[in-house]
Amino acid sequence: MTAFIEVDYRFPAGVDARSQAQAIAIGQTAGSWDAHFQHREAQLRGHLGKVAAITELADGCHQATVRFPAANVDGRLGSLLTMIFGKYSLAGPAKVTAIRLPEHFGRLPRFGLEGIRARLGVQERPLVMAIFKPALGLTAGDHAEILAKVAVAGLDIIKDDEILPDLPMAAALARWEACAPVIEARRDQTGRDLLYAVNLSGDARQVQTLALQLVAAGANALLLNVLAYGFPVLEALVADPDIDVPIFAHPSLAGAWCGAPDYGFSYGALLGTLMAYGGADAVLYPAQYGSLPFAAADEWAIVEALRARGVAPVPSSGVHPGMVGRILDDYGAEVILNAGTGIMDHPQGPASGVLAFREAIERWQNAAPRALEDLPAGPLRAAVEKWGQG
Amino acid sequence: MTAFIEVDYRFPAGVDARSQAQAIAIGQTAGSWDAHFQHREAQLRGHLGKVAAITELADGCHQATVRFPAANVDGRLGSLLTMIFGKYSLAGPAKVTAIRLPEHFGRLPRFGLEGIRARLGVQERPLVMAIFKPALGLTAGDHAEILAKVAVAGLDIIKDDEILPDLPMAAALARWEACAPVIEARRDQTGRDLLYAVNLSGDARQVQTLALQLVAAGANALLLNVLAYGFPVLEALVADPDIDVPIFAHPSLAGAWCGAPDYGFSYGALLGTLMAYGGADAVLYPAQYGSLPFAAADEWAIVEALRARGVAPVPSSGVHPGMVGRILDDYGAEVILNAGTGIMDHPQGPASGVLAFREAIERWQNAAPRALEDLPAGPLRAAVEKWGQG
Repeated sequence: MTAFIEVDYRFPAGVDARSQAQAIAIGQTAGSWDAHFQHREAQLRGHLGKVAAITELADGCHQATVRFPAANVDGRLGSLLTMIFGKYSLAGPAKVTAIRLPEHFGRLPRFGLEGIRARLGVQERPLVMAIFKPALGLTAGDHAEILAKVAVAGLDIIKDDEILPDLPMAAALARWEACAPVIEARRDQTGRDLLYAVNLSGDARQVQTLALQLVAAGANALLLNVLAYGFPVLEALVADPDIDVPIFAHPSLAGAWCGAPDYGFSYGALLGTLMAYGGADAVLYPAQYGSLPFAAADEWAIVEALRARGVAPVPSSGVHPGMVGRILDDYGAEVILNAGTGIMDHPQGPASGVLAFREAIERWQNAAPRALEDLPAGPLRAAVEKWGQG
Repeated sequence: MTAFIEVDYRFPAGVDARSQAQAIAIGQTAGSWDAHFQHREAQLRGHLGKVAAITELADGCHQATVRFPAANVDGRLGSLLTMIFGKYSLAGPAKVTAIRLPEHFGRLPRFGLEGIRARLGVQERPLVMAIFKPALGLTAGDHAEILAKVAVAGLDIIKDDEILPDLPMAAALARWEACAPVIEARRDQTGRDLLYAVNLSGDARQVQTLALQLVAAGANALLLNVLAYGFPVLEALVADPDIDVPIFAHPSLAGAWCGAPDYGFSYGALLGTLMAYGGADAVLYPAQYGSLPFAAADEWAIVEALRARGVAPVPSSGVHPGMVGRILDDYGAEVILNAGTGIMDHPQGPASGVLAFREAIERWQNAAPRALEDLPAGPLRAAVEKWGQG
């Protein structure tokens, strides 16, 4: 049975969608050939794409669906991207709005939200994740000090800031080694693990080597700026049986691929579908509730694509305790709440930031009222007094 | 001495460029910190970026120049991209229009145009490069047959179509092994080599392994879809002393990063500066003369950045013999002329396509007239009759 890859392209008003879709179906596959290749006719035809549908959208745009034989590519995202939007991306305004892949295509997350929960020993409630701040300029020892504060307050996951590469003053391995005893101590005391997603950097081979070194030293999670490093770098990490820890994908650079109305990719296709088929275990993206301008429709398209393959959704950026109720009303409990300043800049310190999140989660679980006047004195109330209810 | 990275951002009319540039200078570096980190004040300050200039452009846009300490990143492009346009790319319309890097940053091309000339034994005249067509559906043996035709006509370089990954029916290694005897025979007969840039695919580790296998089997050039695979994959190939062949970079996907007026990157920054600092030896990009809509200013920005580091410029897409004179008037001889259908679909066959290019180059070298009526019967005249003078 032939498997197909279906891609929706949106063309702005004024573009002849049918002829463009036809150009994609042929030009991005076998191309044209003449009498010299008659003996390969059947084979060549088998690689051609096909325009499956053209739909007029409300605003004068058109959507074209092109169906590609899955056998044109090697089941990895590099050749997929090259086929569906490689040279054609240079042909004028067009946006990839959806990518539908055969189920067996690409990678499955090895952990996903379920596997992350299993590692943490936390079922049911939403998970809480923090970010080391400030981003650059701390030592490995500073990281351990910060971690000690949030660990005792019951944090589930912490990650490096994405802009922190493997620099001499706080090398990735040194950061892990400084933080490992803190994580171990909490495990001894509470029986509960804490994941630290250490940021990867370097060239592709260095990324892989660093990941192996970190995991060999006990590191229990990794962070990758997937778009800045390339989906094939993610795929190589996921393919390596020795890198048996959850991989958190950061959306760094996604605005350059997705921000424009008539170019690039939709956020759902890029941060949802492609991340999920690249094998990420958890994917961060801007939350509509947060500090970046992000459309609800984009957020839900991402979440739907991630959840379809068991990947953990991680709404991020400007998330603080006061908006937890609203986020959980929308997401339910199967989500990782991720906060940088929303934890680290709590008026009573980072530990109280974590406690405020946990308190907000509990109130949501108990359907307790959320207005400021209903909150008892404590970390959540102090957070809402600072940041509002969002 | 502190080295700096300078980036120009263009903001559309209505955006407060100064406050956005300030947000980049701080938010994409150390971020903010409070009294708890007073003891790290000097260190933290050392990582902050600085707004170096704000300029109003003619159309109500503003350009902001932000200066980052080079020590914030690891000298590789993944962390560079994350710093200069990672999370910030999600903050609204902004385009990176120029990136100025310290000279020692990144990689130098190991071959560049000079090294490619040395391998081919061809000095002075422009080089001619062809593309295997049709793109998908041929066997390795078909590739060898096509190559035999163009090799005898004096072709310098051939490359796979970028959409051809390592598929069972014409595996990359099989393609090279089928073509190698053709290349060897020509070397024996003429003393002149011919480079075949074999397309790489797979996950990051597979790309590296495939490159090593190909080079071990004698392959003399490689092709990489750098944007679909990631700059770190290019960097890892360049860093590997066992992969001692020129690497040709394809601009596949560049429109998704660069096509929009107010988002992403300028073509000059992406296909010029970043490719050159990633270590590519030759970079393909759409020619303004060709079949894709490409602005002259973008083309010259790319060429300038490539030539500054000795990288070979390869104007591509819709290039045919009739436009050679015009291209060489603009470029001079230090260029690789790259044609797919412009060679393979020549009315008298692919060999005549190559001969037509060589004839056009000779006429340009001799300042011979180019109008159709001045051309003697032969391959060039037949090409101009088919495709015009472009």
